[in-house]
Amino acid sequence: MTTITGFEAIDLRFPTSQHLDGSDAMNPDPDYSAAYVILRTSSAEHSGYGMTFTIGRGNELCVAAIRSLATLLVGQSVESLMREPVALYRRLTGDSQLRWVGPEKGIIHLAGAALINAVWDLWARIQQKPVWQLICDMSPEQFVASVDFRYLTDVLTPGQALELLQPHVGKRQQRIEELRASGYPSYTTSAGWLGYSDDALRQKCADLKARGWKHFKIKVGRDLADDLRRCSVLRREMGDDAFMMIDANQVWDVPQAIEWVRQLAPFRPWFVEEPTSPDDILGHRAIAEAIAPIRVATGEMCHNRIMFKQFMQSNALQVCQLDCCRLGGVNEVLAVLLLAARFRIPVCPHAGGVGLCEYVQHASIIDYVCVSGTMEDRVAEYSDHLHEHVCDPVVMRHGRYMPPEAAGYSVKFTDAALAGYTFRG
Amino acid sequence: MTTITGFEAIDLRFPTSQHLDGSDAMNPDPDYSAAYVILRTSSAEHSGYGMTFTIGRGNELCVAAIRSLATLLVGQSVESLMREPVALYRRLTGDSQLRWVGPEKGIIHLAGAALINAVWDLWARIQQKPVWQLICDMSPEQFVASVDFRYLTDVLTPGQALELLQPHVGKRQQRIEELRASGYPSYTTSAGWLGYSDDALRQKCADLKARGWKHFKIKVGRDLADDLRRCSVLRREMGDDAFMMIDANQVWDVPQAIEWVRQLAPFRPWFVEEPTSPDDILGHRAIAEAIAPIRVATGEMCHNRIMFKQFMQSNALQVCQLDCCRLGGVNEVLAVLLLAARFRIPVCPHAGGVGLCEYVQHASIIDYVCVSGTMEDRVAEYSDHLHEHVCDPVVMRHGRYMPPEAAGYSVKFTDAALAGYTFRG
Repeated sequence: MTTITGFEAIDLRFPTSQHLDGSDAMNPDPDYSAAYVILRTSSAEHSGYGMTFTIGRGNELCVAAIRSLATLLVGQSVESLMREPVALYRRLTGDSQLRWVGPEKGIIHLAGAALINAVWDLWARIQQKPVWQLICDMSPEQFVASVDFRYLTDVLTPGQALELLQPHVGKRQQRIEELRASGYPSYTTSAGWLGYSDDALRQKCADLKARGWKHFKIKVGRDLADDLRRCSVLRREMGDDAFMMIDANQVWDVPQAIEWVRQLAPFRPWFVEEPTSPDDILGHRAIAEAIAPIRVATGEMCHNRIMFKQFMQSNALQVCQLDCCRLGGVNEVLAVLLLAARFRIPVCPHAGGVGLCEYVQHASIIDYVCVSGTMEDRVAEYSDHLHEHVCDPVVMRHGRYMPPEAAGYSVKFTDAALAGYTFRG
Repeated sequence: MTTITGFEAIDLRFPTSQHLDGSDAMNPDPDYSAAYVILRTSSAEHSGYGMTFTIGRGNELCVAAIRSLATLLVGQSVESLMREPVALYRRLTGDSQLRWVGPEKGIIHLAGAALINAVWDLWARIQQKPVWQLICDMSPEQFVASVDFRYLTDVLTPGQALELLQPHVGKRQQRIEELRASGYPSYTTSAGWLGYSDDALRQKCADLKARGWKHFKIKVGRDLADDLRRCSVLRREMGDDAFMMIDANQVWDVPQAIEWVRQLAPFRPWFVEEPTSPDDILGHRAIAEAIAPIRVATGEMCHNRIMFKQFMQSNALQVCQLDCCRLGGVNEVLAVLLLAARFRIPVCPHAGGVGLCEYVQHASIIDYVCVSGTMEDRVAEYSDHLHEHVCDPVVMRHGRYMPPEAAGYSVKFTDAALAGYTFRG
């Protein structure tokens, strides 16, 4: 038995705003940050590591929420928590008083994600497997038992989920070998930040193309004339065959989104990301209907499975960009992968920032091996920054994520990162 | 000029769980709490008082978020903030880093509400008016200038909002006089908590009926046999003419909600409240279609105007239970009142807890005087608890809210409350 005996919650902030990495129409100066938790256990050998991602101010509130929620784990054994993984999810999201300040959204849910991810990390370390492997070794019944179907059963029951998973069991091993040989495709935003000059955009695009990428995302939405020029620069540099994605980071109202995207349509974007409020399901649907065949993508701020359910039910999104920290950790990510399979919507998880790339590779591998069984129209986001601060950074080859082999969920930070970037207010 | 020079943020908790006041299917043991803020100013005479409501654990996180956000107000003059009230809303909800941990939802939005409400309270105290009066004295143009129309313009533009408000200007004074004479109707949950025995239910219903109430809400959703018995007890006690409302506090999935409400239909509920997840717009719509003519009510956990917009657009609710603390303060309450008028949906604001009754009377008065112009199908929630802790408690007469006459927004707590109920961890 490995009992959780205590925890440390740490406010890590990286001063990325100094270089305008990560700048977009809504977020001019992010400082990529992690509300980071280490679960200590009765075993000297094993700790669990989890985080949620923020962009600076407010990270202290996620750390405080981790402290409030972590008391629900202290004294529990990881074996009893993981015997019924859905109970872990409910323990951290269902406290009757704490759910009032959510429910299942905002700071309390971000903090819950950090802790749920830390328990999965701990469990995977004890099993000496990466998290993706732990889940790919589960039976369909065990997979389904990790998902909270509350509020989903009108579109997806546990029985229907089993039917989705069973046909893939026999093909899992072959897919894992394929991934180990050639990786999972990614796309990158490293070229397209709004704060970059045209020259920087061109040069970064050329560099990434040479390194194997075929999908390029560019931030838009601050000034239409600028966007027309920058999309033209990018399309010329990336070539006709590559995929362009445009990302508005929620700056438009619905009618404005439709008009603006129509102006940029000649550059043939594959999708437009976050055209309006992340809460506006019906608004996204109206945009999607108006701009087809350009797809609508959203999800980095889609806070739970109930919102994703509706986006998918109403065909309001055509690309699902789930976030491994915004959703309530591994359990809710599995729920959304199942929903996406149910509605045949490709999952292209949100990353960038810090730690997110390390997380999303697991989600995309699980999706390919166990859930959707395809890489068609699927790319996991990637960005080139801050990987040096984690102990097991992503390994990219020719623009593709190579499956992580170290045990756990890949976001243990280095001692140097803790020493250098712990925020002291 | 009155400059905001500092603030106190206070964690107030009332141990209501000891008596099972407030118990329902989702919340078995709430401790009604306020994350309370006092804005200090350059004038010794004037402070501003605001709060958000929680049910216990997690209140400390709202207090922490108030501290993080309040720094955005310190050094500002209330005159400059209120010159353009929408800028106040954007200042507290639009910080590019802090919005990441929302946006406009959860703890950061609850805290923003406390602060926005405190600034309106302060401004009203300086003008020596209650908040409802301050707004009823505004021109339609000033009213519209208090609302952030971002993400609303696909269904409601500022111009359309003006058209909604203008016809009521000439009738405002007469309506105010009417309210001062006979008040605004309320309904009460004080009888129907799940923790009460049948005898307590019967006795409290008889008592409230004698005091003038005609609407009675009862909590359901834990056990169907219990619900059938308790609804029968209540219907017999309240009589055939009074209105019964049933409240499930989010415990059902969509198919279960439809089935359960059909079982209770013989007791003729006027509406069912929170039948499922507060995020599930399309689920509420499916329920509403299946159980008509019983109405669907929701809103106490509907976190912003964008969610309400969609609930109304899709006819997923027929009774709007906005919450003055869950929404981003006075500004966003005004936005939702306008949306409700646009879609001709009655507003019956959520109250109970602590401080909420004091807030909602203002919302309902504004709705009647300036926005909807009718009390038809409209009742503001009321509960009998904890009014002794505020300096200007609600005044009820024959089950109706009498318009508050004291300056401000009615939630200044007494010194005794601060001394007796400040929570020290």
